[in-house]
Amino acid sequence: MDVATRTIVAEKPPSLDGLLKLAGPDMAAVDALIRTHMDSPVPVIPALADHLIAGSAKRLRPLLTVAAARLAGARDDACLKLAAAVEFIHTATLLHDDVVDSSELRRGRVAAHLIWGAPSSVLVGDFLFARAFELMVGAGSMSALEILARASRVIAEGEVLQLTRAHDLDLDQEVYLEIIKAKTAELFAAAAEAGAVSAGAPPERCRGLRKYGQDLGLAFQLVDDALDYSGASETLGKNPGDDFREGKATLPLLLTMARAGAGERDFWVRTIDRREQTDADFERTRDLMRQTGALESTLELAAGYATSAKAALADFGASPWRPALEDLADFAVARTA
Amino acid sequence: MDVATRTIVAEKPPSLDGLLKLAGPDMAAVDALIRTHMDSPVPVIPALADHLIAGSAKRLRPLLTVAAARLAGARDDACLKLAAAVEFIHTATLLHDDVVDSSELRRGRVAAHLIWGAPSSVLVGDFLFARAFELMVGAGSMSALEILARASRVIAEGEVLQLTRAHDLDLDQEVYLEIIKAKTAELFAAAAEAGAVSAGAPPERCRGLRKYGQDLGLAFQLVDDALDYSGASETLGKNPGDDFREGKATLPLLLTMARAGAGERDFWVRTIDRREQTDADFERTRDLMRQTGALESTLELAAGYATSAKAALADFGASPWRPALEDLADFAVARTA
Repeated sequence: MDVATRTIVAEKPPSLDGLLKLAGPDMAAVDALIRTHMDSPVPVIPALADHLIAGSAKRLRPLLTVAAARLAGARDDACLKLAAAVEFIHTATLLHDDVVDSSELRRGRVAAHLIWGAPSSVLVGDFLFARAFELMVGAGSMSALEILARASRVIAEGEVLQLTRAHDLDLDQEVYLEIIKAKTAELFAAAAEAGAVSAGAPPERCRGLRKYGQDLGLAFQLVDDALDYSGASETLGKNPGDDFREGKATLPLLLTMARAGAGERDFWVRTIDRREQTDADFERTRDLMRQTGALESTLELAAGYATSAKAALADFGASPWRPALEDLADFAVARTA
Repeated sequence: MDVATRTIVAEKPPSLDGLLKLAGPDMAAVDALIRTHMDSPVPVIPALADHLIAGSAKRLRPLLTVAAARLAGARDDACLKLAAAVEFIHTATLLHDDVVDSSELRRGRVAAHLIWGAPSSVLVGDFLFARAFELMVGAGSMSALEILARASRVIAEGEVLQLTRAHDLDLDQEVYLEIIKAKTAELFAAAAEAGAVSAGAPPERCRGLRKYGQDLGLAFQLVDDALDYSGASETLGKNPGDDFREGKATLPLLLTMARAGAGERDFWVRTIDRREQTDADFERTRDLMRQTGALESTLELAAGYATSAKAALADFGASPWRPALEDLADFAVARTA
């Protein structure tokens, strides 16, 4: 069953509507905090930051902080500043990633470094990262600060690991999972855990929400990696095939290489290792993916993590936030963009 | 009186020896913290970080944190983690600056991005920045965290301001001072203030040490900008003339341009604005600097800030740290590298 038919046969396609409605007032406040805190007397800073931040429709990570805090019983608004901080950390890493990868499109817009130059992207990333910590200080929880400082460090480690290993044809699938755990799932985990911690939730609840965030993040990244081969640029907000062109060994590609056998080795050495590609190479790779079922396997793994994410919420009692977060896990896997 | 003769005629040349001896045990502990915290399972991270950190002989900024804390009466070791954090923030900004400016030399070594590539420099900078905040969390002072988070943001703003205005022939001297206040003096100010705050010093003492750090930082940067025209590469640890080649409008150049008159305008438009330079242009600029006394004026301004820095320590009682910090202010101006 491929990605396109999967959402059609589902009785009721998973949606974010319930969660977005519940979190509406909180997220409006988070948005206002984001607006205020990206301002600066240096004009290029808000201009560049806005280019990226306005392109983000879902604000998935801050949403996670707010939802985790509310599910954990938060009655005050400390989680809102943490949520804004989480979005700033995420935006800072996107700005730096796009410089590192020389990406051309991000969130459906021309990448910032192509408009304002790589130096401005690096420095505005630094600005947003520092602002994130100012917001966290404002939230007043040293534990939440610790969680998000650690996450920021782990993300950087994951990015460097990816940079040094990404073009490795023989990359171990374990190392690939380690990379996405660090560069993507860690911020999801920290976003949820920081929300729970700021709500004063007991340790086992904080751990539960951390686990939910981590598994959601893994599912999310696996689907992202699959969509880079199966998606359309209009819905993706970035060019499909970016990973392939950059020679990034993501799971769909690793599975395809492993299953296509030694006969294709020369093809991978040329296209991934040496990155000498013709227009037809991406299509040939998609054909091999179809033949080997690599995308299905990637999505099955993602679905497993989504199931595990939902299971991590088992101990939480009746609250409208719980089914909303369960829907989010299903949505992460079912989405086509 | 030029830079070279000034230090010779002084009765006793200012030196860091007293301060370095006093701070010796503390700085050895800071060094150990730096070593431990730059470690990572991803090998390129400690390798790249060590390349830059090992090149730093003086560790001026963490020294400032330790000295401020001890002068303010610190009896515990909370200031050591803050000092290590300050060095990490500084190193992170250096890594990003060298990418932004495409510099070739740093601290007497080939710039990291020329060895490991710009992407690694950007990401290891992010790693060190995050580690700095982990260290601050470990120090346990929310006030110190607030000071250093704010400083990190102000530094980024200063860097962006410099990036967008640095090649401006008509850059106002006020804006130049605003830039160096943000990109350099702010970290000196925050390093000293955070040390004082972590020692539990009363607000007026914290303000005094912040003022000392800020004025010291301004003096330090002004002398740096002068040395870029008067220093020798062997002692500087970077190439003299870097600012000129990058077309950076620092104070010595701004004063020279203002004093050399309209007749030289075409020369500046070509060399600074359009950055079309021949080998002889740097020498011609040095000649104009000598004729206009621009270096002397820059150093006089620096000396004024050093005096003001020392005055900010007036309320502190008898402590060996006070004359040591006074020497540091004199040293910042008298140094030839």
